[in-house]
Amino acid sequence: MAPKTAISPTRAVDYPEWYQQVIRAADLAENSPVRGCMVIKPWGYQLWENVQRALDDMFKATGHQNAYFPLFIPMSYLEKEAEHVEGFAKECAVVTHHRLEPDPEGGLRPAGKLEEPLIVRPTSETIIGATYAKWVQSYRDLPILVNQWANVVRWEMRTRMFLRTAEFLWQEGHTVHATAEEAIAETEQMVDVYRDFAQDWMAMPVIVGSKTPKERFPGAVETLSIEAMMQDRKALQAGTSHFLGQNFAKAQEIKFQSETGGIEYAWTTSWGVSTRLIGALIMTHSDDDGLVLPPRLAPSHVVIQPIYKDDSRAEVMEYVNSLRDEIAAQTFNGAPIRVIIDDRDIRGGEKKWYHVKRGVPIRLEIGPKDIAKNSVFCGIRNQPKSFGISREELVQTISTKLDTLQNELFAAALKLREDNTVSIKSEAEFRDFFATKDEDGIHGGFANCYFADEDALDPLLKELKVTIRCVPREGNDEPGTCFFTGKPAEKIGVFAKAY
Amino acid sequence: MAPKTAISPTRAVDYPEWYQQVIRAADLAENSPVRGCMVIKPWGYQLWENVQRALDDMFKATGHQNAYFPLFIPMSYLEKEAEHVEGFAKECAVVTHHRLEPDPEGGLRPAGKLEEPLIVRPTSETIIGATYAKWVQSYRDLPILVNQWANVVRWEMRTRMFLRTAEFLWQEGHTVHATAEEAIAETEQMVDVYRDFAQDWMAMPVIVGSKTPKERFPGAVETLSIEAMMQDRKALQAGTSHFLGQNFAKAQEIKFQSETGGIEYAWTTSWGVSTRLIGALIMTHSDDDGLVLPPRLAPSHVVIQPIYKDDSRAEVMEYVNSLRDEIAAQTFNGAPIRVIIDDRDIRGGEKKWYHVKRGVPIRLEIGPKDIAKNSVFCGIRNQPKSFGISREELVQTISTKLDTLQNELFAAALKLREDNTVSIKSEAEFRDFFATKDEDGIHGGFANCYFADEDALDPLLKELKVTIRCVPREGNDEPGTCFFTGKPAEKIGVFAKAY
Repeated sequence: MAPKTAISPTRAVDYPEWYQQVIRAADLAENSPVRGCMVIKPWGYQLWENVQRALDDMFKATGHQNAYFPLFIPMSYLEKEAEHVEGFAKECAVVTHHRLEPDPEGGLRPAGKLEEPLIVRPTSETIIGATYAKWVQSYRDLPILVNQWANVVRWEMRTRMFLRTAEFLWQEGHTVHATAEEAIAETEQMVDVYRDFAQDWMAMPVIVGSKTPKERFPGAVETLSIEAMMQDRKALQAGTSHFLGQNFAKAQEIKFQSETGGIEYAWTTSWGVSTRLIGALIMTHSDDDGLVLPPRLAPSHVVIQPIYKDDSRAEVMEYVNSLRDEIAAQTFNGAPIRVIIDDRDIRGGEKKWYHVKRGVPIRLEIGPKDIAKNSVFCGIRNQPKSFGISREELVQTISTKLDTLQNELFAAALKLREDNTVSIKSEAEFRDFFATKDEDGIHGGFANCYFADEDALDPLLKELKVTIRCVPREGNDEPGTCFFTGKPAEKIGVFAKAY
Repeated sequence: MAPKTAISPTRAVDYPEWYQQVIRAADLAENSPVRGCMVIKPWGYQLWENVQRALDDMFKATGHQNAYFPLFIPMSYLEKEAEHVEGFAKECAVVTHHRLEPDPEGGLRPAGKLEEPLIVRPTSETIIGATYAKWVQSYRDLPILVNQWANVVRWEMRTRMFLRTAEFLWQEGHTVHATAEEAIAETEQMVDVYRDFAQDWMAMPVIVGSKTPKERFPGAVETLSIEAMMQDRKALQAGTSHFLGQNFAKAQEIKFQSETGGIEYAWTTSWGVSTRLIGALIMTHSDDDGLVLPPRLAPSHVVIQPIYKDDSRAEVMEYVNSLRDEIAAQTFNGAPIRVIIDDRDIRGGEKKWYHVKRGVPIRLEIGPKDIAKNSVFCGIRNQPKSFGISREELVQTISTKLDTLQNELFAAALKLREDNTVSIKSEAEFRDFFATKDEDGIHGGFANCYFADEDALDPLLKELKVTIRCVPREGNDEPGTCFFTGKPAEKIGVFAKAY
């Protein structure tokens, strides 16, 4: 018989439903009454705040500043860049009226029709570009290195919490440069920031590469992305950085006088990550007992559960408070360890599973017997068994324990990816890898394949529901032979089913 | 002849236009191509980030957590609370379609009509209340103490940057309690947080009081506010905290099982401040040379301007870098002093005025002659003259200098309010106070008046364009006589023209 798990169904039984149940059990978010929009609950939002803080520091350390641009984009602005409007017009929220009036048939109805409809921003290249056109006059005004933290709306028909919602939170960097070289360097720098954040903070290994033309951001010359493998071996695109060339500069007239006096179009970039990262984090580390948090991003690193009866309460709470203070005086990742006490009046088992499901990295139980031995009972989120440990040793090693957990999560995710990545040289192998499912209903994983012609592959990829995730930047210097056409091929692509 | 000023017109000549010019000169924000929406530029946004950080810490210290709720509100939700919809239906952005399609006459047109229109949130009581109704089942689920940082939209017809814009950034706290007493205590606590923030961080003295029934938030039982006097002696409402009674709980069915087993409606509050605070800050402290920043909120506390020729550059920059490090090692307000070096290749005078207009609290100029004397030339933003000071004394006193500036700004603003606040006992005095303008075209200021009947005052107040800002909480215990009707009156109101 399978062991009892806190989350039902398990990953093996129904991965998509397991994902929803982890979100519910960890109290991260819920569906809202508004179609496709979610409510991010306090535990989930604290996680997002930690993501924001770490990324924002990295953006500022690389010379960027934050600003804020309008929520609305005039419809005519979207039309200016042909590929861009093609990419976003099909799914956007359109504001057409500016008030409500009583409806003669009861209730209210829209009134005050706008002369020009406004689009709720799906991304802000057009409105920010129009502003930059005013800011940029001379080469002395460049570069512009600005980021915005904002909400955006894309009218997705099939939504899934964190991964794909009609409204989501994100950051979008938008930069302007005097030369193509500088803009390309910025695009590379920011995808590296995303890689470092994913690997160092989220404990999520990623592949950095460039998108093929069909998979690029609408209007971009080059799109770089970070791609991660989830536990069902599907890929998730976790962040993108776009070299926009002069496409948006020409559409929006971002021009400047160069050092030599001529008038030139500028070169722009944009780059973004979103609350989708939370979905990626959940699917990378969580298990059949709920959320598993990488300690660097955990809202609380340690929870202490005092165990007492009425007559031992004072003694236990005094001990627990002093331990809390001692732990909070330790540092992890350059800041004090975040420790909370949960002394709610609920059953011990219920309390334990509450914190296990929410992914708190270290859980301590302390009752009168532990105090008598000056020890605590310690559970670490990725270890099956709790263990007793002396108070002194716990305090001395707690920061290391958090580091170890962070590193073990990364190592486990990397091992999963490596164990499920193959090099494929023929169509037959390729079909077998993606069409065959194992006993858990999971297909192969990532396939590294030389390919010559994206268009020629289209029918095969559509049939198998596979996409080219990226052409990896690393280890891709030798030419080879296309697995499908047998023609010479310059580059390897990472092929996978994807979110 | 009047002295030359960096801002034209001066406050005395045209206060509203001076305000716009300060925003432009300090590079805080600009109007966007979207009607009524502004772009918050990096210097303005850093200021807002500092406001957010300080307030967020205060919210968390009082037990609140952040969450995030949908941007959109179904039209039917707004209709549930009658006063609320009355207050917001006249100016809201209405989403009616979810895609764009080619228009046969050229360009695009809205398509995909929604079954129910969605309102871009003007405030979130209704959508958050609908969510809370699901969260609250038992008294054990209470209180709920949640805040949201978000953008909101109110379709204002007459907009002014920061003070009144169609889209603005704010925070909105929404709490649920088991008893009226608890909810009232929360409402009071949060207006006190706003008062402390305004006074301690913004150096802006405020009056705490309750709004009269006509001035309350639509749907509230009681609205508390903080009110500040701007330099043109008009009042500005800088923050509000609402006791909503059971009005929204009944409209949205927020019910709970009490300790004794009965089902009761909950008691709710909401409270908010917005980017309007930036407008209040500008109008409280700035002068005819531009923005004046209270040091606690200044993005940079100190700017160092190195002065050199080609042959002295290395020496000056070495000195300046070491001074920067020495200043950054000092603390102000519990954190390292924020110091920047401006070594752009522009004229010294232009550079000086750049930072004066942006309100940097302390400006240091350092050239070879200063270095020879081991001294610097120091300008403090509220002092007319710069002065020489030894490096050692500067470093030792720089934190105190920032503190002194913070305190002097508060004292000056308090003095302005006290000098322009009168007690008025008759209609004639009242008319004279508000109808007579001084040589700068400014009316009297704040009038403290006993009043018996808000409705009876309506024609007089409309005629003079005066409003009752609040019934102050402090010093309002003795009854008196209504200045207008001569009837007995319980309370003093603060009467003023207002933003």
